This record gives sequence, structure tokens and C-alpha cells, in this order.
Amino acid sequence: MVDTEGRRGSGSADPGPLGVIAGNGNLPAELVAAVRATGRPVVLVAIRGESDPALDGLGARWVEWGQVGKLFGVLRREGVHDIVLIGGVAKRPDFKSVVSDFETLKRLPRILSTMIGGDDSVLTRVLRLVEDEGFRILGAQDVAPGLLAGIGVLGRERPGERDERDIRLCRAVITALGPYDVGQAAVAMDGRVVAIEAAEGTDAMLARVTEARAARRISAKGTVGVLVKGPKPGQDLRVDLPTIGRKTIDAVKAAGLAGIAVEAGRVLIADRAATIAAADQAGLFLIGYKVGRAD
Amino acid sequence: MVDTEGRRGSGSADPGPLGVIAGNGNLPAELVAAVRATGRPVVLVAIRGESDPALDGLGARWVEWGQVGKLFGVLRREGVHDIVLIGGVAKRPDFKSVVSDFETLKRLPRILSTMIGGDDSVLTRVLRLVEDEGFRILGAQDVAPGLLAGIGVLGRERPGERDERDIRLCRAVITALGPYDVGQAAVAMDGRVVAIEAAEGTDAMLARVTEARAARRISAKGTVGVLVKGPKPGQDLRVDLPTIGRKTIDAVKAAGLAGIAVEAGRVLIADRAATIAAADQAGLFLIGYKVGRAD
Repeated sequence: MVDTEGRRGSGSADPGPLGVIAGNGNLPAELVAAVRATGRPVVLVAIRGESDPALDGLGARWVEWGQVGKLFGVLRREGVHDIVLIGGVAKRPDFKSVVSDFETLKRLPRILSTMIGGDDSVLTRVLRLVEDEGFRILGAQDVAPGLLAGIGVLGRERPGERDERDIRLCRAVITALGPYDVGQAAVAMDGRVVAIEAAEGTDAMLARVTEARAARRISAKGTVGVLVKGPKPGQDLRVDLPTIGRKTIDAVKAAGLAGIAVEAGRVLIADRAATIAAADQAGLFLIGYKVGRAD
Repeated sequence: MVDTEGRRGSGSADPGPLGVIAGNGNLPAELVAAVRATGRPVVLVAIRGESDPALDGLGARWVEWGQVGKLFGVLRREGVHDIVLIGGVAKRPDFKSVVSDFETLKRLPRILSTMIGGDDSVLTRVLRLVEDEGFRILGAQDVAPGLLAGIGVLGRERPGERDERDIRLCRAVITALGPYDVGQAAVAMDGRVVAIEAAEGTDAMLARVTEARAARRISAKGTVGVLVKGPKPGQDLRVDLPTIGRKTIDAVKAAGLAGIAVEAGRVLIADRAATIAAADQAGLFLIGYKVGRAD
């Protein structure tokens, strides 16, 4: 079995099937395929209106946003103890959809206290809610480490010296912001930090770099600059891993940057082969760096 | 006279008229009025297409963007030694407009080397160009300190405890980013940093907070959060002072924030009376903090 530290136990009991709760995008399907390839059965739960309809082909059970009770019931009946939550969540459930079954109604006080309050801790409270039901939450890196960025050059292109300097600058900024739980990504161009991500997300940050260059508020010429992305120091790596994919490649290309550096082992690459191929085709470098190493 | 440290000399020679080179907005007119009120004459140079046409009423001489030579000539003939550059610059001059007079043509190699290169140092090189012509550049704070934010509560409203915490958080973020020459402003909401300014400017940063709240990517309810703004540690305070004005008040109100904190003595308030009145009317606090003090 694989525990949360990612070590393999020796001769321990059957961990049972893995429960996978799927958000949107391709990552849930990739994770299911990777886990099943190791021989571990998967119980896949998809959320209507959120998960990819193609998950039907992988035997997904569909629940509504509000059927938390049904969700737990399905998982428990199948003997699931370990759960992975994977894929983004675009839609926030409204109150009505949250009370759509009796099992959920019973849990309503707890669910409400989970939904109310500051944004940053909702995730933590959701995790506690799931753990209080007796489940253990694993991260994608625990069950399918192959989905994460590795160390070094991942595609064909390599960063130049100017790029290396920009990467170091962004990493320094991300590290400086660590204590304040902000700064999952940054963009630097030729020695100047031009964008720092806070609540807006990486795509929105890249879009504003594109706009700023078009409006000539950033005067750097040609293909220059880097996107650096990695988790914040306090981030819960079980559910909130930073992710890049083909959309990221397109946005970085549109912003006229030279490439992307992500923290190795802590950033998911969605649709890995296609994403790396897209980076190659766009002429962008894509590298994984290890925190604690000089580069 | 007033030197760059803002101290008054005793019995020194007449410093001559102050040259004021006006960018856009109201600040140039306010500065001219403030300086003339002290008895010092002002030679006001306005840039066509950039400065407020109303500066005509203050006796402005108009130059084109490219008439750098004419500009220096006007100032020198009037006995100007000290220059203040004030107001924003929205338009970058194109090459053609830069070589529109003979005096400028003579300086072309120097001007070109000023225009070419990374964005962040252009300003520094422009300053060197002006200083090489024998002028001294002063900051608005040296000649009209009344235009800058003072210490403490500037309007009617006061920050609450939650606001004070958000202000401390933003100030910590701005301080942490200091070594990297980025982070002139930040927004925090109830303990969470939601936006950090890099190359995009304060208005764009506030607009994205407004959008994120409308899209419910930030779930904070009601009027909550602060904008904190101050210069970066390495910023040249003679030409690049952060500024707030009525537009800032409107944008902060639209973002649903509770108020604004600016570094006292280092942030200009354009249209001061109207800006503070607008903050009062919007129910926003507006305070000046002193770096080095606890609050």
C-alpha cells in the first residue's frame, strides 16, 4: 500500500478500493487510469454539472452537488477508506442543492458551518468533514506520482541564463510571500517582477501580462520572461495541488514568455504528454525545480 | 530655500523659479498653486496631448512630446535650476515625435539610449538625462509637502480591528516584497491577501478584486478589506510617488472594501479635499501610516 508519505508499506493489509471524487477537467480520468494500472480498484464518484461526462466510460457514479450523504453512502458500501479529491471545482453549490437528500439533511448543521466563513479555510473544513465521516484523504501524489512534474527539463527547450535569473527572482518572491499564504505563481521578465498571483488564479494573471504587453505598459521586447508556479508553504497538498496544462501553455505563449518552471513533485501536469508536446511546439521550456536546491 | 531633504536653508541665495513639467491629471495645477502660494515663481511646462488644457490658465508653455530641446531651452532662459516632474504619463512618445526639433536632434543618441532597454530603468535614465543638462530634480514632497498624505485618520471614518489586521498583513507583504522591487500596493480581506500589485497599476488591481467578488471567487461578505499603498523601498521619490485620488476611492468602493491606508509623507493625494470628501461620502476610512511605527 501507499501511505500519505508516499512510501510503500511491506505486507500490510489490503487498503481496499480508492475512492476518487472528481472535479472538472481531464485529471480525474488520468488519475483513475494511473491507479487502476497499479492494480488497485477505484470507486469513481462524479459530480453532475461539474465532472467530465466522459467519466461515464470509467464507471462513474453520479451525484448532485448537494448529495453529500449519498456520496458517503456509495463510498462506504464499496468498502472505500481512502479518498482522493482531484480536479478543479468551478461552481459553488447553492443552498438549495445542498439539502437535496435525507442523508445530507442530517449533516446539515455541520455542512452549514463548513460553508459559512472566510474563503481560505472552507477547504480545510470540508476535509475535516470528510475525515469526521471516517475516511482518510490522500493526495494525487500519494497514489499517482507520475501525474506530477519531475525534476529538470521536461520538454525539448532549455532555459537560458536570463531565464534562469528570472526563475530565481520569481522563486525568491514566492518564498518571501510564503508566511502570508499568498503567491502561488509569479511572472518575471528580464529581471523585473511583472505579476504576482493572489486570489485571481494563474490564467487571469497571465492574461494581464498579455494585456500589459499589448498596451505597452511592459516594454520588454520579443520572447522573454518566465512563469514560476509552486504551492504556498502552508498549502494542503492533499487537495489543492497547483496544476498546469495545455491552457497554461497557450496563456504563457500568448504572454510572450520564454517558458515555465514548476516545483517538482508538487505541481500536477494535466494531460501530460499533450501539455509537454504543446510546450515543445510553442518553443517554450518547461522545467521542474526542487525546493532547497540552487536551481 | 528648500533642498532635497525638505529642510529650509538659512539665508542662502535665491533658488530662482521652480520648473514644473506637467504630466496628466490635476496634480500639476495643485502643485503650481501650492508653490506659488509660498512666494516662489513657477515656470510651468505642459506636454501637448498629455497635460490638462486648463493649465493654460496658469501660464503654461506648451511643448510636444519630442521637443526635449525646446523644453530645456525654455527652462534655462527663465533661470530655472530646480525641476519637479509631476502627474502621470499615459502616452509613450513614438520615435517620430521625439525628433521634432533641432535641439532634440542634437541630443538624439542620448535620448535613444534612454528609450531603449528594460522598462524599470527608463525613468532613472530620463532623470540622468535631465541632470546631465545641469538641472536638479526635486520631488513634490520637497516643494509642496501639503499634497502628501499625513499621519493618522484623514477623513471621518476610522478602521476597525479587523481592518487594522488587514492593514498589518498588507504592510507585511509590501515589506517582504521590498527587496524584489515589486509590490506598491496590496489588498487584504479578513486576513487573506487577495491581490498584489506588480506592473498592472492600482486601478487594474482593484478592478480584479471587484470582478473576483462578483464571480464569487472571493467569498467575503459585505464591506470588508483594505487597500494599502506606499512606495517600494528602492523607489525614486522625486518622480515616482504613489498617488491616490477620487478614482481610487471609487474603485475601492466598487471592490467593496472598507478603506485605504497609505504611507504618510510618501503618497500624493490628488484633489485632496474632494478625495477625502468622496471617501467620507462612500463610508471609507482613509488613513496615513508611518513606516517604522506599529500602526
